[in-house]
Amino acid sequence: MIEYRNVKVALLGAGSVGSQVARLLLEQGDDLAGRAGAGLELTGIAVRDLDAARDVDLPRELYTTDAESLILGADIVVELIGGIEPARTFILQALNSGADVVTGNKALLASHGPELFAAAEQVGAQLYYEAAVAGAIPIIRPLRESLAGDRILRVMGIVNGTTNFILDRMDTLGESLDDALAIATDLGYAEADPTADIEGYDAAQKATILASLAFHTSVPLAAVHREGITGVTHAQVEAARKAGFVVKLLAICERLTDDDGADGVSARVHPALVPLGHPLAAVHGAKNAVFVEAEAAGDLMFYGAGAGGVETASAVLGDLVSAARRHIIGGPGLAESTHANLRVLPMGSVSTSYQIALDVADQPGVLATVAGILAGHGVSVETVEQTTVPKESAGVTRADPAEATATLIIGTHRARESSLARTVADLTTEAVVNSVTSVLRVEGA
Amino acid sequence: MIEYRNVKVALLGAGSVGSQVARLLLEQGDDLAGRAGAGLELTGIAVRDLDAARDVDLPRELYTTDAESLILGADIVVELIGGIEPARTFILQALNSGADVVTGNKALLASHGPELFAAAEQVGAQLYYEAAVAGAIPIIRPLRESLAGDRILRVMGIVNGTTNFILDRMDTLGESLDDALAIATDLGYAEADPTADIEGYDAAQKATILASLAFHTSVPLAAVHREGITGVTHAQVEAARKAGFVVKLLAICERLTDDDGADGVSARVHPALVPLGHPLAAVHGAKNAVFVEAEAAGDLMFYGAGAGGVETASAVLGDLVSAARRHIIGGPGLAESTHANLRVLPMGSVSTSYQIALDVADQPGVLATVAGILAGHGVSVETVEQTTVPKESAGVTRADPAEATATLIIGTHRARESSLARTVADLTTEAVVNSVTSVLRVEGA
Repeated sequence: MIEYRNVKVALLGAGSVGSQVARLLLEQGDDLAGRAGAGLELTGIAVRDLDAARDVDLPRELYTTDAESLILGADIVVELIGGIEPARTFILQALNSGADVVTGNKALLASHGPELFAAAEQVGAQLYYEAAVAGAIPIIRPLRESLAGDRILRVMGIVNGTTNFILDRMDTLGESLDDALAIATDLGYAEADPTADIEGYDAAQKATILASLAFHTSVPLAAVHREGITGVTHAQVEAARKAGFVVKLLAICERLTDDDGADGVSARVHPALVPLGHPLAAVHGAKNAVFVEAEAAGDLMFYGAGAGGVETASAVLGDLVSAARRHIIGGPGLAESTHANLRVLPMGSVSTSYQIALDVADQPGVLATVAGILAGHGVSVETVEQTTVPKESAGVTRADPAEATATLIIGTHRARESSLARTVADLTTEAVVNSVTSVLRVEGA
Repeated sequence: MIEYRNVKVALLGAGSVGSQVARLLLEQGDDLAGRAGAGLELTGIAVRDLDAARDVDLPRELYTTDAESLILGADIVVELIGGIEPARTFILQALNSGADVVTGNKALLASHGPELFAAAEQVGAQLYYEAAVAGAIPIIRPLRESLAGDRILRVMGIVNGTTNFILDRMDTLGESLDDALAIATDLGYAEADPTADIEGYDAAQKATILASLAFHTSVPLAAVHREGITGVTHAQVEAARKAGFVVKLLAICERLTDDDGADGVSARVHPALVPLGHPLAAVHGAKNAVFVEAEAAGDLMFYGAGAGGVETASAVLGDLVSAARRHIIGGPGLAESTHANLRVLPMGSVSTSYQIALDVADQPGVLATVAGILAGHGVSVETVEQTTVPKESAGVTRADPAEATATLIIGTHRARESSLARTVADLTTEAVVNSVTSVLRVEGA
């Protein structure tokens, strides 16, 4: 039996992830010590209520309501409370006392990342956050270290399991969004208030973390363009499948050059059409995956569980072993790197291709009119499919219900978001266009 | 402009990977310096022949035939010569002089890994080898660090692009193995002598590296069971597709418990039936992927380019940035961890399920006889499919060509390799069995 020096670990929070971290620390102490080169001594678990029901049965004497004392006596503080306060104050206390911090708190990192990284750098402490993005999937360390010698061009992630579960059911089972959401709620994949997931707030938090890391540039949450999945219809999913696509909610972080030739980066979250042959199209259920395009490495994908108590605990423990090794062997870890300091460009600078569905009057010259509007904004047409809609069809809005109409599905070449927005505005006010029924971006084609 | 301290980098070898590493070091020096916190100064490139043709045009004064002087003046030595000697001697010289070493040399690591790691540990130097397995895909660092707090149960990898390219063409285009190999050779995916790839030697080298890392146990190359793809027939691939499988050459490293209750690990390389719904089944062409099953994290997959000069250079540069950071900030890196020191169990201890195809006499009682042989060895039948083969069929060996025969395809439950081997031996000598036409392991079901 090797005798190791002990590293004191304070755990804040005993929710689904925290309780699993505590269990694994206690059960696999010897294994972890072998890998860390240090014993990981769990000195306590700070909770609000000592008597709350827990997922895992742990020795009662570990619990305390005195988080501050626990933090002050720790070498490493593991924050798994979530939310902004008191998590932010606790992490700053820990860093200022010289402790390293492991956190899975994406909301806090997305909104207060620079403050926390600055505090860590000032005292030479380290902030680990593998669990904050895509749960169990190792993505932070590969981006931060493995690809440190490469230039990342684009990161496209399915980083929210709830919305992927819903969209996957809409695609494979033909369910409506409401039905799929109800099942996600029943199975515990969606919270009672699903807004953070289905409106894309959760994915946007992860996008800001991924973009900052990938581009060595601080990308604020406010700069992330965000659309959720609540506008995704059964008809869109069905049409997508027929056209060889699947609808996925993507977090996309990319380098780009705007019309003025300025280099920069952007981050955005929105539903997108992904070609069926793309590796992201095969990510089913509540799984997550992050697809990375790098200049030298080419295409990479990291796939796995994006949530779950024990799965996310794996990422926390990996960070904890790294932090413990660092504590024993000394030397500063990696500081948050924002040395590239690229411009964060607005959504209008993004360039991608689109599928636009229009309900139009079924009369000569309509296609020419529509094509003229696109051309006028420099949006070039790649494919057109026109189908006549029988008179008085259900669900079609038109001035005269007795008038025949047609559906026009236009696939465009790459165009700027700003040009596309102006095109859609003009199409909406054009007389022969009854309605713009769907506009979806195509990614990964 | 920030002024960085310089770290002296010596490059050994200017082949397809080495020349790309040199190019990227020269072209992206500022970016790399920002990430490493140190300038990466390429002090020279050791080659055998100064006048050989090169993939990339580099300043002629960088080349030298004096590898030893170059090594002695370096902080970090990047070995991309390949093969055992002189690579081994150069790496030992570098480590003994206190330099960190970055290598992509899987053959050397597989055969002399313990010697190299011991040399590194003795002087507190570090040996990085992300490029040695699965090219550009970050897999070494995730296994070594991200999953350090988890218990890895199984690693299943498509780690040889050449054989995946060949098997993928056999599956999707119906080509024969010979035709697919000829095309792989034409396209440069296969070497003039393809033995190392198609006989599984290359995959076995990677299996020993992955198993050692995943299980914190030294797994020698000699302990890796190895079968290549030369026995894979068009008929097997076709039958697999019909039954919902695809044939892949897998490197499988797993924890297991043998019949005597002894815990241990095993590593093996062989063609296997992978269910079409498994993420590994969707890995096409020359791509690589490593599927990891961990106790807490669940299923993870890492996907990308497994070879290629510039792709592999990305992995080398990632390691180089890590090594440079360590050089500047000090402190030992990770030593090769063999603290778990588990028993390496023989192939007979492995347990998996099988699909066995038999050509049998078409007469009453044959199924009972065959089933009796399986039961006698404790191999339990999950599925049976029997089809009558018309008399005097081509390609079927039988005592009396005028006798009707049947094909029996048996899917088994999990059984030990040792039991399966005895079963197959008995089937081969059984009178009603004309021949055992195919035995394939099923993995990932």
